[in-house]
Amino acid sequence: MTVRFTKGHGTQNDFVLLADTRGDLDLTPERVRHLADRRSGVGADGVIRLAPTAAVARDGEGVADEVLAAEPDAIWFMDYRNADGTVAEMCGNGVRVFAAFAESLGLVDLDGGEELVLGTRGGVKRVVKEPGGWYAVDMGLWHLPGGADAAAAGADAAVRAAGWDAPRPGLSVDLGNPHTVVALARADELAALDLTTAPLVDPVPPHGTNVELVVPLGEEPAADGVGTVGRLRMRVHERGVGETRSCGTGACAAALAVRTWAAAGADDPAAVPTTWFVEVPGGEVRVRLLDGGHVELAGPAELVFSGELAL
Amino acid sequence: MTVRFTKGHGTQNDFVLLADTRGDLDLTPERVRHLADRRSGVGADGVIRLAPTAAVARDGEGVADEVLAAEPDAIWFMDYRNADGTVAEMCGNGVRVFAAFAESLGLVDLDGGEELVLGTRGGVKRVVKEPGGWYAVDMGLWHLPGGADAAAAGADAAVRAAGWDAPRPGLSVDLGNPHTVVALARADELAALDLTTAPLVDPVPPHGTNVELVVPLGEEPAADGVGTVGRLRMRVHERGVGETRSCGTGACAAALAVRTWAAAGADDPAAVPTTWFVEVPGGEVRVRLLDGGHVELAGPAELVFSGELAL
Repeated sequence: MTVRFTKGHGTQNDFVLLADTRGDLDLTPERVRHLADRRSGVGADGVIRLAPTAAVARDGEGVADEVLAAEPDAIWFMDYRNADGTVAEMCGNGVRVFAAFAESLGLVDLDGGEELVLGTRGGVKRVVKEPGGWYAVDMGLWHLPGGADAAAAGADAAVRAAGWDAPRPGLSVDLGNPHTVVALARADELAALDLTTAPLVDPVPPHGTNVELVVPLGEEPAADGVGTVGRLRMRVHERGVGETRSCGTGACAAALAVRTWAAAGADDPAAVPTTWFVEVPGGEVRVRLLDGGHVELAGPAELVFSGELAL
Repeated sequence: MTVRFTKGHGTQNDFVLLADTRGDLDLTPERVRHLADRRSGVGADGVIRLAPTAAVARDGEGVADEVLAAEPDAIWFMDYRNADGTVAEMCGNGVRVFAAFAESLGLVDLDGGEELVLGTRGGVKRVVKEPGGWYAVDMGLWHLPGGADAAAAGADAAVRAAGWDAPRPGLSVDLGNPHTVVALARADELAALDLTTAPLVDPVPPHGTNVELVVPLGEEPAADGVGTVGRLRMRVHERGVGETRSCGTGACAAALAVRTWAAAGADDPAAVPTTWFVEVPGGEVRVRLLDGGHVELAGPAELVFSGELAL
């Protein structure tokens, strides 16, 4: 069997994309691993199959039925697979690249102002394209597992990275997946950090946690002249993966933690920025608080090349 | 500018191949780095441009003039670049994939028994295809820098890998590039070895050395029933690169060292096999002593996919 594919990335989180517009591609774990293999296949962090939500529902995925019931406009479904062949719920950077891919296939006119409504195993997602070419995604609900106490204290965990003499305070942030965010004082300390092993977190959540190491870089005037925006730099150790060049939910968690710390120390917490630019090793993304306890992630998406290979 | 490319690999040493049949592609270091980038480009250990030897000569590469003078049949030249954009002389695994690429372009009929004669910065190379689909390349001259004394002693260097209490004896082998080969007793010790840092070699050659860690696995009857062939397993730390999944000259050096050790301990050195199968992390290759002090490397080559991208 020969398949046509496209390779793309969002802040260097990279994907092999398959346009399964009839929903009949049998994407076995073996095929995913072959596609994702960086030496004997195409190579990527994950494989994304674009398929009709109705076809995914027909294949027995209950979540696709729920998506269609909740939002019949979610014609297309992002079937996300990790490089090891396992199924994943969602990928914040992957959604942007999925949107660029859907555009390239003529399935949505984002430049014309349309919104892409898509199904994922993490529920319905909505993507719009901004004038600068970035893609913005409502990532859904977030919360601090430690509640108001953790927000006031700025911490509810102790984190120890390789080479640290003592643990440092960390703040837990939940975005559907677990994160623990630790502040460092200086960018050079962040750059020198050894993340080849997972930082130890105490107490560690039942299913582990992603760890974000961040350096707050202060506030700057917003580009539109209205108020200020925040900026921070981060590195991330992804649970079960290791250090990566970008993590969408991690960028959201980092911005939400830094904003929580800023609000705890501010005379007027309402004046703390709701928009934060997050510098990750693979580029830059933007995190924005939305109404209703939602958070938005915006950033670039690039389609690099297309080709065909035998599966 | 948009270029069409093919991705291929030989025992998981992988390459982006460009068919520059008119010899007019300006392959700058920046373009090489973009093509070789595993996240924002195609991704590979190296980039191979197939160009007319005459065009390379016209571009002022003296070695191409020498190739044409020595061997006018070397119509095509393998312009090999490392992933970092620098120029390289030769690549043993790359030559096989170059041959498969030339076949796919219809430039040579290897299945019909033709020999591919190609120019490289390491001189003229010759490739034939075997009935099983493997490609065999005459890698040229080899020698032991330590001479007969080193051959008799089985060692002329001391090597210390991470975690070793004491140095172990190593044998230097030259294949145009420098190698130091160390024997381990057991496959599980080889598998557990930490090669994240370069083993220390004393005395270290002026331009450093590649280090092969090998486990001899004994002899077995040859497939054609005539005599025996040897087998060994190896891992390799490439100078300036780190551990790789395959190294063509390294496999040759490993086989030559193991054969030297076997001959030193044999009642009849002439009965020691001249053919050795070398198991590398990325697959298996075959090394054979040729007449005139030459050595042959044979192994698979796979073309995985083709595509186009903007440079």
